[in-house]
Amino acid sequence: MKEKLTIVKVGGAVVEDEEQLTQLLKDFCNIPGHKVLVHGGGRRATKVAEALGIETKMVNGRRITDAQMLEVVTMVYGGLVNKHVVARLQALGADAIGLTGADGDIIRSHKRPPVPVGPTAKSDGSGLSPTIDFGFVGDVDRADGAKITHFIEKNMVPVIAPLTHDGQGNILNTNADTMASTVAKALAENYDVTLIFSFEKKGVLSNPDDDESVIPVITRAVYERYKADGTISGGMLPKIENALSAVEAGVRQVIITLATAIDGQHGTVIKI
Amino acid sequence: MKEKLTIVKVGGAVVEDEEQLTQLLKDFCNIPGHKVLVHGGGRRATKVAEALGIETKMVNGRRITDAQMLEVVTMVYGGLVNKHVVARLQALGADAIGLTGADGDIIRSHKRPPVPVGPTAKSDGSGLSPTIDFGFVGDVDRADGAKITHFIEKNMVPVIAPLTHDGQGNILNTNADTMASTVAKALAENYDVTLIFSFEKKGVLSNPDDDESVIPVITRAVYERYKADGTISGGMLPKIENALSAVEAGVRQVIITLATAIDGQHGTVIKI
Repeated sequence: MKEKLTIVKVGGAVVEDEEQLTQLLKDFCNIPGHKVLVHGGGRRATKVAEALGIETKMVNGRRITDAQMLEVVTMVYGGLVNKHVVARLQALGADAIGLTGADGDIIRSHKRPPVPVGPTAKSDGSGLSPTIDFGFVGDVDRADGAKITHFIEKNMVPVIAPLTHDGQGNILNTNADTMASTVAKALAENYDVTLIFSFEKKGVLSNPDDDESVIPVITRAVYERYKADGTISGGMLPKIENALSAVEAGVRQVIITLATAIDGQHGTVIKI
Repeated sequence: MKEKLTIVKVGGAVVEDEEQLTQLLKDFCNIPGHKVLVHGGGRRATKVAEALGIETKMVNGRRITDAQMLEVVTMVYGGLVNKHVVARLQALGADAIGLTGADGDIIRSHKRPPVPVGPTAKSDGSGLSPTIDFGFVGDVDRADGAKITHFIEKNMVPVIAPLTHDGQGNILNTNADTMASTVAKALAENYDVTLIFSFEKKGVLSNPDDDESVIPVITRAVYERYKADGTISGGMLPKIENALSAVEAGVRQVIITLATAIDGQHGTVIKI
């Protein structure tokens, strides 16, 4: 039987609030079994960029990463946030090790080509839609589950920053949710994996105006129904698609929950 | 017989010059046997601090690390420089892994207490000399040679940034030369270690005005003689003391050489 492993993804809002971070890291350490933490840091990156006089440009909620912004996210995600979290976990007795995709070549990606945007874009990229170049953003090609497993088997706790590399010497900015599900899939062969996405709501809500209307379980069939009737919409769609693809690739379950409720007993469970 | 391992320390001037860095990393990869790279990044940290409107204060060539400067060096050493070097080494086929002292708890330190400065300071800290608080600077307590060995045995190449942690959740700024000799001593039990300090001269010079006057070999006896007659003075004294303490702790040899001559055949060799 495979050993249990829990991957927790925590966003930028939590990692830059000392009080919330302290509680989250304590809760994280209390999760039994092997663990991996994946963090964001976008808000902090935006602040540091601003202090450096670098403008932050977002399209559809995604950061445009030009050469200057790549330096900022490399500093903030790989240095400031990652090392802070590692040091804090070490103080709590977890043998944390900070990693980007470049470290140990654990996650390799390629630079995203310019993509069509706007309502006239067709899925094959044709049409009259303008394209947008997201810059130094990496779309994941592969993760080395054996290498990550190797750290875990030595009782280390990987703390993964949302940066990858292209194998040609370039660091690329990669979405933290994508990093988390990539790592979850890569480890599913070796472990019984639960992937927890912590965010600002109690779970996936059936009524966006009612914070208590948490949908307890979402399967592919449930998702298709809620998607068709409009119950689930907007930014939640790619999040759940991402989660469903993880469970379909062998991850036991994905849980979407509050950052203060990562014990596996709260939130929305997405499973086969 | 122990396997050979070479530790190269490279300073900030080289890591921030793309051309010099490219050559150095190629030369580094050509060194046979196991390898560890330790880097600085002070010049880049000073530039980033300046861009953020943070003043850099130095005393006796050492940076004062207040809370804001700690964030800068954590970003620059742990993120910007470290991840850049890791990605570049990966592109050259070396399985680099970026580490600070906090990662895997490999190097632990304590915050340096305020120290006396100036000519009236006595070695026991007494006297009328004013004290100076270097801030969030870590003096090394211990390095975990077994843990670093573990990465090396998996054919990874540790790339170590000059940051440590105190085990209580705090990152501390630590001199890169000290990091390099600490790691060298910690690995001497398991490997036949050569420690190479790359810098801007061909070696330790007997005549500071003659760049060709490289002293080929320095032992403790040679050092004491050159120190007494003033041939070696100033900032070179602590560098050589540091090197002698490493060889006396079991490191085979320390080489002080140009960043373009790290093949082990050039520069000044410091040995028992």
